[in-house]
Amino acid sequence: MFRPEIKVIDCTIRDGGLMNKSNFTIETVRNVYKAVCASGIDIVELGYRNSKQHFSVKEYGLWRFCDEEDLRKVVDGIKSEKTKIAIMQDSHKAVSEDVLPKKDSVVDVIRVATYVKDIDKAIKLANNATEKGYEATINIMSISRALERDLDEALAQIEKETKVSAVYIVDSFGSLYSEDMDYYVDKFKKYIKNKEIGVHCHNSTQLAFANTIAGIIRGANYLDGTLYGLGRGSGNCPTELLLSFLKNPKFDSRPLFDVISKEIMPLTKKITWGYSIPYMIAGSLNRHPQAAMDMMDLPDNNPEKFEYRKFYEKLTEEQMED
Amino acid sequence: MFRPEIKVIDCTIRDGGLMNKSNFTIETVRNVYKAVCASGIDIVELGYRNSKQHFSVKEYGLWRFCDEEDLRKVVDGIKSEKTKIAIMQDSHKAVSEDVLPKKDSVVDVIRVATYVKDIDKAIKLANNATEKGYEATINIMSISRALERDLDEALAQIEKETKVSAVYIVDSFGSLYSEDMDYYVDKFKKYIKNKEIGVHCHNSTQLAFANTIAGIIRGANYLDGTLYGLGRGSGNCPTELLLSFLKNPKFDSRPLFDVISKEIMPLTKKITWGYSIPYMIAGSLNRHPQAAMDMMDLPDNNPEKFEYRKFYEKLTEEQMED
Repeated sequence: MFRPEIKVIDCTIRDGGLMNKSNFTIETVRNVYKAVCASGIDIVELGYRNSKQHFSVKEYGLWRFCDEEDLRKVVDGIKSEKTKIAIMQDSHKAVSEDVLPKKDSVVDVIRVATYVKDIDKAIKLANNATEKGYEATINIMSISRALERDLDEALAQIEKETKVSAVYIVDSFGSLYSEDMDYYVDKFKKYIKNKEIGVHCHNSTQLAFANTIAGIIRGANYLDGTLYGLGRGSGNCPTELLLSFLKNPKFDSRPLFDVISKEIMPLTKKITWGYSIPYMIAGSLNRHPQAAMDMMDLPDNNPEKFEYRKFYEKLTEEQMED
Repeated sequence: MFRPEIKVIDCTIRDGGLMNKSNFTIETVRNVYKAVCASGIDIVELGYRNSKQHFSVKEYGLWRFCDEEDLRKVVDGIKSEKTKIAIMQDSHKAVSEDVLPKKDSVVDVIRVATYVKDIDKAIKLANNATEKGYEATINIMSISRALERDLDEALAQIEKETKVSAVYIVDSFGSLYSEDMDYYVDKFKKYIKNKEIGVHCHNSTQLAFANTIAGIIRGANYLDGTLYGLGRGSGNCPTELLLSFLKNPKFDSRPLFDVISKEIMPLTKKITWGYSIPYMIAGSLNRHPQAAMDMMDLPDNNPEKFEYRKFYEKLTEEQMED
């Protein structure tokens, strides 16, 4: 039995781009796009459309900006009508002017990522997108640290002031348990009446897939995943696991297995993501993964890389000062 | 708030031994033992006591047999009164005669692993252990493939015919979802009235920790984990995650972080365990991980190692013939 309302969003290139400054080759992005379309996934997110005033084009790859001409190189000759194309705008690092009218773009969905404090910026970007003809979502990041009152107000605003299709619970720190997911879905439902609820999980404590399932059971219908979990730090809910759980016969995992073999496994030699003790410590203490990412970036011959107890004690002390 | 009845069992050396034929150095086992004791964990499992008629002492390391003199080398000078020592006997690969009277042994707990079909052998070994003065458990492996009627009968027998302290749900294939864990805990409770229920999970679909939590919530009190998840194939519920979830102040994660740095991270260069596509495919299709383990053992330059689609198609076809 499956729930036809469920949409799966593969955001491998977008979230994975946080691990390599969005420096994927066009060939890799084409292959991922092609496979995701062939698998019957509903939406594929190909990167950020963030502002060149905020990110250097010298330092960051094409998929931090998703210029229209680059997206066309990805989809040229293989564009699927079934799989929508999404890009992400960060509410504090993107501008409305970078979004063309829908008729001039291959993009279908603009996902606006925001902290609760930037909700007004996010609403502006989301409304810009819907007014220009796109589907839009608002994805509330770092939800595990959001203050109750602020989150409630943000949700009420989104419901009233936007026409987004979905509002996301984003567990940026990978620190939620299933019972927290239940709590947030219930809270979202209290405010969000005419829009879907989405979940985007990180795997710091190996709960990304489990929390996504918890979200499904509680009523979330927009589900994010990435191939082999490729994403920031500990990575995300693996898309291949998500498809194995969903029973909708429209999905076919086999093209995903092919592209994981061909494109993602070679990346494991260059980028390190997935479960590790620093991410586990940060996640279980409800902390941003940046300090853990810095630790993981140390060379293997630097003993500090493996000083887990020290890292734990440091984060625990900082937590008491929070 | 914590549940004082909960017992954590670290089985790093025992389950991890399935990945290196139990060839850990005495030094490694000593360091793991010492750290697990220092962390306040209730039980540490140091290997199998399987029969030398079934395993070659040339091929397998000391921890496949756990001879008393080898165990004494591990605990000598550092034996903790708080942390019990366990060993495992496989019902079809171990004999009663290998178990000394309790007064002659450093072992406290004998865990008997069994398939449902071998339940009579398991009961014999468990009763041998309790009669000789040990605590014993029976751990029912491959539960996801057990036939309902056989499992019911086995549980009724265990309840009636043994004095074990706990009966385990062992998700050998890593194929259970949380709802399945609920189902099995409820079923066990129907038959097992005077013994605890245990959970031992594998991580094929990244649900080992989540399913352990599901077991806790449903009432299981014996919880298995391994350091950094070291265990067969995709590995186990990481002990460090389990401690981060449990609120009992008697636990201290820091010695675990130290020994993971010192002993487990170096092992990652020699043994490959954890999430991978072959394990994910086997787990999600409710299949034994052996075929996936064979695939993972291929050298990296053998393209068959990455033929995930072919592996998926093979297992799917076989499944239809089951």
